[in-house]
Amino acid sequence: MSSLESRIDQGVGREPADIVLKGGRFFDLTTGELVASDIAICGDTIVGTCGEYDGREVIDISGRIVVPGFIDTHLHIESSVLTPQEFDRCVLPYGVTTIICDPHEIANVLGTDGIQFFLDSAMESVMDIRVQLSSCVPATHLETAGADLPIEKLLPFRDHPKVVGLAEFMNFPGVIHKDPGCLAKLEAFQGGHIDGHAPLLLGKELNGYLSTGIRTDHECTSAAEALEKIRKGVHVLVREGSVCKDLHHLLPVITERLSPFIALCTDDRNPLDIADEGHLDHSIRTAIAHGVEPIAVYRAASISAARAFGLRDRGLIAPGWRADLVVIDSLENCAADMVFAGGRKVTEALFASRKKVEPVGLDSVRITPRQPKDFAIAASDREFPVIGVVPGQVITEHRRLRLPMAGNEATMDFDRDIIKVAVIERHGKNGNHANGFVQGFGLKKGAIASTVGHDSHNICVVGANESDMAIAVNRLAEIKGGFVVVADGEVLGEISLPVAGLMSLQSFETVRDELKALRQKAVTLGTSLQEPFLQVSFLPLPVIPHLKLTDMGMVDVDRFELIA
Amino acid sequence: MSSLESRIDQGVGREPADIVLKGGRFFDLTTGELVASDIAICGDTIVGTCGEYDGREVIDISGRIVVPGFIDTHLHIESSVLTPQEFDRCVLPYGVTTIICDPHEIANVLGTDGIQFFLDSAMESVMDIRVQLSSCVPATHLETAGADLPIEKLLPFRDHPKVVGLAEFMNFPGVIHKDPGCLAKLEAFQGGHIDGHAPLLLGKELNGYLSTGIRTDHECTSAAEALEKIRKGVHVLVREGSVCKDLHHLLPVITERLSPFIALCTDDRNPLDIADEGHLDHSIRTAIAHGVEPIAVYRAASISAARAFGLRDRGLIAPGWRADLVVIDSLENCAADMVFAGGRKVTEALFASRKKVEPVGLDSVRITPRQPKDFAIAASDREFPVIGVVPGQVITEHRRLRLPMAGNEATMDFDRDIIKVAVIERHGKNGNHANGFVQGFGLKKGAIASTVGHDSHNICVVGANESDMAIAVNRLAEIKGGFVVVADGEVLGEISLPVAGLMSLQSFETVRDELKALRQKAVTLGTSLQEPFLQVSFLPLPVIPHLKLTDMGMVDVDRFELIA
Repeated sequence: MSSLESRIDQGVGREPADIVLKGGRFFDLTTGELVASDIAICGDTIVGTCGEYDGREVIDISGRIVVPGFIDTHLHIESSVLTPQEFDRCVLPYGVTTIICDPHEIANVLGTDGIQFFLDSAMESVMDIRVQLSSCVPATHLETAGADLPIEKLLPFRDHPKVVGLAEFMNFPGVIHKDPGCLAKLEAFQGGHIDGHAPLLLGKELNGYLSTGIRTDHECTSAAEALEKIRKGVHVLVREGSVCKDLHHLLPVITERLSPFIALCTDDRNPLDIADEGHLDHSIRTAIAHGVEPIAVYRAASISAARAFGLRDRGLIAPGWRADLVVIDSLENCAADMVFAGGRKVTEALFASRKKVEPVGLDSVRITPRQPKDFAIAASDREFPVIGVVPGQVITEHRRLRLPMAGNEATMDFDRDIIKVAVIERHGKNGNHANGFVQGFGLKKGAIASTVGHDSHNICVVGANESDMAIAVNRLAEIKGGFVVVADGEVLGEISLPVAGLMSLQSFETVRDELKALRQKAVTLGTSLQEPFLQVSFLPLPVIPHLKLTDMGMVDVDRFELIA
Repeated sequence: MSSLESRIDQGVGREPADIVLKGGRFFDLTTGELVASDIAICGDTIVGTCGEYDGREVIDISGRIVVPGFIDTHLHIESSVLTPQEFDRCVLPYGVTTIICDPHEIANVLGTDGIQFFLDSAMESVMDIRVQLSSCVPATHLETAGADLPIEKLLPFRDHPKVVGLAEFMNFPGVIHKDPGCLAKLEAFQGGHIDGHAPLLLGKELNGYLSTGIRTDHECTSAAEALEKIRKGVHVLVREGSVCKDLHHLLPVITERLSPFIALCTDDRNPLDIADEGHLDHSIRTAIAHGVEPIAVYRAASISAARAFGLRDRGLIAPGWRADLVVIDSLENCAADMVFAGGRKVTEALFASRKKVEPVGLDSVRITPRQPKDFAIAASDREFPVIGVVPGQVITEHRRLRLPMAGNEATMDFDRDIIKVAVIERHGKNGNHANGFVQGFGLKKGAIASTVGHDSHNICVVGANESDMAIAVNRLAEIKGGFVVVADGEVLGEISLPVAGLMSLQSFETVRDELKALRQKAVTLGTSLQEPFLQVSFLPLPVIPHLKLTDMGMVDVDRFELIA
């Protein structure tokens, strides 16, 4: 933190600035102009623009453009399967200087220990990691979570310097139906930030939901939905993750006019996609390539995002504002070749200087071994609820299909791409095990299993035969959680995620390579999905329409109840 | 305050809303569209838009347009010469549902007692009166104020629910030169709101000033100045007051593109102008008449203003937002015929229901009687500094003129419109009395005197003869402060302002009539100025360029020192 005295001295030019970027232009998000100017930095703060400055360190950025650091307004670090400190190292170099994360996944496994781990990590990161308090743990009464976070357990964190209000309020039926636990949380954060999550919620039900003070939503999947929400005062967070790719659908609302009410987010993005495509820079680049005005999308990525979350110190390149800066080649290409986070130039040495935060939840997978017979589905001849997977989306379809029978068991139907899915409670609470059918995975053999299973993170396994399903599940327990690919009785590939069964202890480079290898193994099973592990992990998520499977059974999300 | 339960029930349409506005359209400041829709209100909160609602009270607004309540982002209630509660009654019916005021004038006279009076009044008003903590009391070391407010005296107010940060930091030279008292105040409000005030400050000096976290400015008098400030991250508050009329000069920056970085304010506006022209509605109407896009100026008047000051609950017409609504005839004409403040329909009965706040500072004019000879200016034959009045602006010109001599006294020169001005300390501190010359008042006879004299509110008198000047000053003491017009030895007119010598105890209608009569009297003295009392009251203000007179003597504002 620089002193006011130093900032004034360096700003007026009485003393050389700590750092001066020379020879470039900055993208002025107020006027939309590219302004040729030095940028003077004192400590963590910009102190000079629109002029020439002397600096103790002068960095030549000739020919390049400086834009404000990007703000990811909604994401779960856990979805990168990296620890927060490794996520910092992985994503900050793309220009993402602030993230607003919801430790919802680890909180569902470990409760307040998970939130504390994230806050400790946030205090020891280079990027500014802001943490929202997970509002829905357990997410619903239709699943078994590892923890329970009523309002009393959240309140002690409310005034932590890294906390930004209440995280995505997924239980929108609970709000609309005035669930007392929901209302207690909403009440406690009145006047602060309350993040929304309301897929396909429109009309008067949306009005009721928003009347509680909820102000953001990252679940819009069409321009019409986004437009209704914006018109109702919602700051729409345009999501482009690894599974949910809403950017193309929402391009029509990323206009200069609407830009004060738009931000960007990734929600869930894995290290493979980050390596292949980038992070928020990918969203920016893609939007511009599809005709979005640069001023609209760069505003969304910085100043509009900051304003939506009450981060009043960042989002513009101007004196007195936080020195979060991205030096890029062009507005269109948005490739960062230098990043400043709170005035510090981002380097490997800077990451190495962080104090390491000890991991938590290293023994979180607590199950008894499975047998193939555990995956049998006894039934009379009737229509079954079948989860219809939608490639690239977490929304599923609720199908009712008649299945082949073998004796008194319903069986898979490869011709129609219907295989089995099971969700197994893994927090050592009740040993629940639920089976069902899923359509659209493309698996011709073997099984894919994961301890990442939104939102309670029970084990989810899909498989083309019961024996491989059992092997996959049992292997997950042995490696303390992760992803496993099994075929013909053999473990073809795996990745260990020992931190709460959600995150790796490896570097992002290692994780990326492991995931790549693992994805190749999944392809050998026949799946046509781009993200088979993420799609597996979202099958148990009962707050996203329309049909899901939890450890308690099949859930009709639209009716918000278990199917008998 | 409505309960969350009621808001949800009424928002989803399960229960009739408390109030429903039917038959109109609302101006959606996100898309810029006029949306035909009911507006449902529950308690203080909007709970339904874009749909039809049943209401316990249904109000037909057919043919009319609803816009969000206007926010005056910077003003001194004292300049209306009304008490805060009477200001509420006077200005709210124009659609101004929120004001952010700086009790700078009363604080300079009464210190913390004045701030407390404003906060007490804010708790008992219909409009939402937000109070900033006066940052510069005394404004400078070049004048004698009635109080001193170092940081220790401000801190106890910082967390009051009606307080919005630190008020306009006028002592910009103090910031640039690192005055310890200034820095202590800036330091204490880091992370909160710090309001700016930096007329004509540009380039690196502006950078140094802004580097301390100052984020707003209402002193721009040209589009070029505003544009530089906006580009440097300043939220520009476009002022249209009774003396300072910047709106026409700043029209070029009130564009849709810049609208997220613009707000409106009045700073100082008297009841005559309010009655004749209106308040912020006047600025809106004028801007549109001059070609400004409605979406730009209505955003500036509401959502952009709210965002600039961290008022996250208001500025749009949408579910969950504060029900501050103005029902107008057309966007262009902006005449309010119904106003809702926090969901309450504004009526005389509503004002009458407020608890009356007792006035303070009823004995604040403490001087010894003046004689004509006290206004003599002894001098040798030389050039004198003469204040050049600029009609309609608080900026003055610094002129050096040779004056006629009578014996060893410099005298007035009616041919060149040069008359005398004096400033007399009135807080009972030191009895200071300073004389000087002013050009441009047009006075042919008599004197005009005022206990309103920015910022220390010593007595300021201008006159065409010394005898009338003495009479005017002595009369001010008798009536406990106010404005007095004297000619030929007689008091022609006066208005009593016994609350700290700044505010009347009368209704705004009475004050308006009294001021009108008084202005007529001033005209009989020959002045050509539209606002002679306000121009008198700004003559002692040593933070506005270029030449001013305080109780200590002539001040060269550019050098920020007394002229020997």
